[in-house]
Amino acid sequence: MPGISNKAIQMPSSPIRKLVPYAETAINQGKKVFFLNIGQPDIETPKNVRDKIANHNLKVIEYSHSAGFESYRKGLAKYYEGVGVDVDYEQILVTTGGSEALQFAFMSCFDEGDEVIIPEPFYANYNSFSISAGVKVVPVTSKIENGFALPSIEEFEKRISLRTKGIMICNPGNPTGYLYTKEELEKLRDLVLKYDLYLFADEVYREFCYDGKEHHSIMNLEGLAQHAIMIDSVSKRYSMCGARIGALVTRNKYVLETVLKFAQARLSPPTLGQIAGEEALNTPQSYFDEVIAEYVERRNVLVDALNAIPGVRCPKPSGAFYVIAELPVEDAEKFCEWILEHFDYNGKTVMMAPANGFYSMPDAGANQVRLAYVLEKNHLIEAAECLENALEKYPYAMEESAKIPTL
Amino acid sequence: MPGISNKAIQMPSSPIRKLVPYAETAINQGKKVFFLNIGQPDIETPKNVRDKIANHNLKVIEYSHSAGFESYRKGLAKYYEGVGVDVDYEQILVTTGGSEALQFAFMSCFDEGDEVIIPEPFYANYNSFSISAGVKVVPVTSKIENGFALPSIEEFEKRISLRTKGIMICNPGNPTGYLYTKEELEKLRDLVLKYDLYLFADEVYREFCYDGKEHHSIMNLEGLAQHAIMIDSVSKRYSMCGARIGALVTRNKYVLETVLKFAQARLSPPTLGQIAGEEALNTPQSYFDEVIAEYVERRNVLVDALNAIPGVRCPKPSGAFYVIAELPVEDAEKFCEWILEHFDYNGKTVMMAPANGFYSMPDAGANQVRLAYVLEKNHLIEAAECLENALEKYPYAMEESAKIPTL
Repeated sequence: MPGISNKAIQMPSSPIRKLVPYAETAINQGKKVFFLNIGQPDIETPKNVRDKIANHNLKVIEYSHSAGFESYRKGLAKYYEGVGVDVDYEQILVTTGGSEALQFAFMSCFDEGDEVIIPEPFYANYNSFSISAGVKVVPVTSKIENGFALPSIEEFEKRISLRTKGIMICNPGNPTGYLYTKEELEKLRDLVLKYDLYLFADEVYREFCYDGKEHHSIMNLEGLAQHAIMIDSVSKRYSMCGARIGALVTRNKYVLETVLKFAQARLSPPTLGQIAGEEALNTPQSYFDEVIAEYVERRNVLVDALNAIPGVRCPKPSGAFYVIAELPVEDAEKFCEWILEHFDYNGKTVMMAPANGFYSMPDAGANQVRLAYVLEKNHLIEAAECLENALEKYPYAMEESAKIPTL
Repeated sequence: MPGISNKAIQMPSSPIRKLVPYAETAINQGKKVFFLNIGQPDIETPKNVRDKIANHNLKVIEYSHSAGFESYRKGLAKYYEGVGVDVDYEQILVTTGGSEALQFAFMSCFDEGDEVIIPEPFYANYNSFSISAGVKVVPVTSKIENGFALPSIEEFEKRISLRTKGIMICNPGNPTGYLYTKEELEKLRDLVLKYDLYLFADEVYREFCYDGKEHHSIMNLEGLAQHAIMIDSVSKRYSMCGARIGALVTRNKYVLETVLKFAQARLSPPTLGQIAGEEALNTPQSYFDEVIAEYVERRNVLVDALNAIPGVRCPKPSGAFYVIAELPVEDAEKFCEWILEHFDYNGKTVMMAPANGFYSMPDAGANQVRLAYVLEKNHLIEAAECLENALEKYPYAMEESAKIPTL
């Protein structure tokens, strides 16, 4: 039998999805499971988008241009103008989700063995896309103590080698919810220019900024025209993850020309999804106002409930819809399995994503979980109750740490 | 400015799309252009599919399972049973077009520097996906003289090295339309088993077999359970290229597990496209009967018209909807540019794909073009008239070959 590739062996299973068999066990046991492990919001896709699909008048579901509908790209340029980012439609390529945009960016900019520095914890699939492109991820660990703020620039600089070709951030962050300040971004900008690196920013949660805080795009950092590559997606913005429509935005024309070659190879992004994406640009502001208000409430409810549990620590983030919480256990992955398989609270339990999959350093985040507040408030309250009760009953809590002698 | 990757530099522009600027010039000059360069059929998508999309009742356009809707995979298993291929739904992964299926297959099976042998001319994007995966394409040239039949197995065997890890075919072939016989496939099977290689087959044109000839899938070759990987797509079958739905099918569970990891990284195939794909399984046989009858007529009309032009040679293929024609010119790419830019026949001209982009050997296919018979018969007749007229008027016809001394 011919073997599989080394790349394939390195590819991690999704940390978000790897507990699925335990969840299936829980469901088969008759338990109700609160799914806080995945960023699939329960928010409705805007009605205008759903109506547009219903009223399609296609005779043939054809390929589009490899870079996406020209009308959609022009619409996106207007949307970006509306959020303060001045780009021409030719600087926007429509992709099959943000995932493909990132793959194209990595394939276009990196050769086998090149290195990308990423503050961790980071979106787990950055690892997968790096492996696909043969790129080595060099992590800089951010800390729960300061809410996962950008680590010091000295920490980044220490990690720059001859193979370093880029820095990647997610802003606001998945899984941390952290929203970078303008000052933090400017520090990154200076470093990127000093070493002539690419700066990639996943800004798909741009609209999800709370408490009056503002989002700052890398596209607005002065001097970065040739260095900044923004990754975007309609998935979370309009609660239409299944449309699989994203975008790559850059002012670097060599990168644009290159990405287009990769785009041509796969022919075109999904036509039906593009119809949805183009219509989504007409979504009224009231939709976002309601959604943001809902997420703020959910965040507050969940973070407060978590911090009220003895031994749990959870910073309150200013963006996206995830939190990282530290639990009073040694091995959060084992706990996440146990709570599905061996526990219930009035017939209910919780599915969480162990945070270790969001770190690249071994053992980092071992006692942390990521929770997505994508369910309605009452379910979040019930989920937190389950968690509190589970932590009281968990037979292995801190058993390993108990063996560590105090110094 | 940071540089782009070596991979990106190697990536070819699409040979199917690279003449687009010349076509735009022709259109700006007021010419009517017959587009025979691209496999975008004018055939309508089945009505049941279009209706199903219009009657969607989604509240949230959600992610699906990374391997695709379970119901769709089960439906696909039944479809394969109907075409004589016995596979379980768990041996089917739904992908974003056949393109993604092929990328997943190459990423899963090949490491940087591994080699895949492909009979040429072949679908140009096999080159692109190979470059993305760091794979070296080793071509075996098939000949227009025998209609692009499988080259002798000795020719394949000569090209096997320590790095060879697979053989890739397209059946029926794009761009040749050639339909492999069972005997040809069995010879490949024996070779693949002898050297323990993967056999990849792009079978997306399975339904397009003519003159009573039968399609033989690699999935039915005995002894190949661990070696055969089939690539599929709904694009051509139901004239819905823009749905971007394909599939990877294999009985090799290590490959399946591996491909699923790549699939998880990109989250899910398009949800709206999957709804279309699942409904397409209910398309009545009458749809295919009509479409096949139409393609047979188109093929006959085009091939007869081409062969009636002095100096043109075009084998009549038994499958797909492409032909390769040899023209009495030295450099078909230059001719394809000229016919768009400097020629018209009653205000009309033709866009063709120069065949050199479908070959990997330098200079191979230099005097050939690929034509897709995706337009209605009258347009094909008009296009052939244009071509005949253009060849009469072309000032550079055979000028280079005229310089070659006869031996």
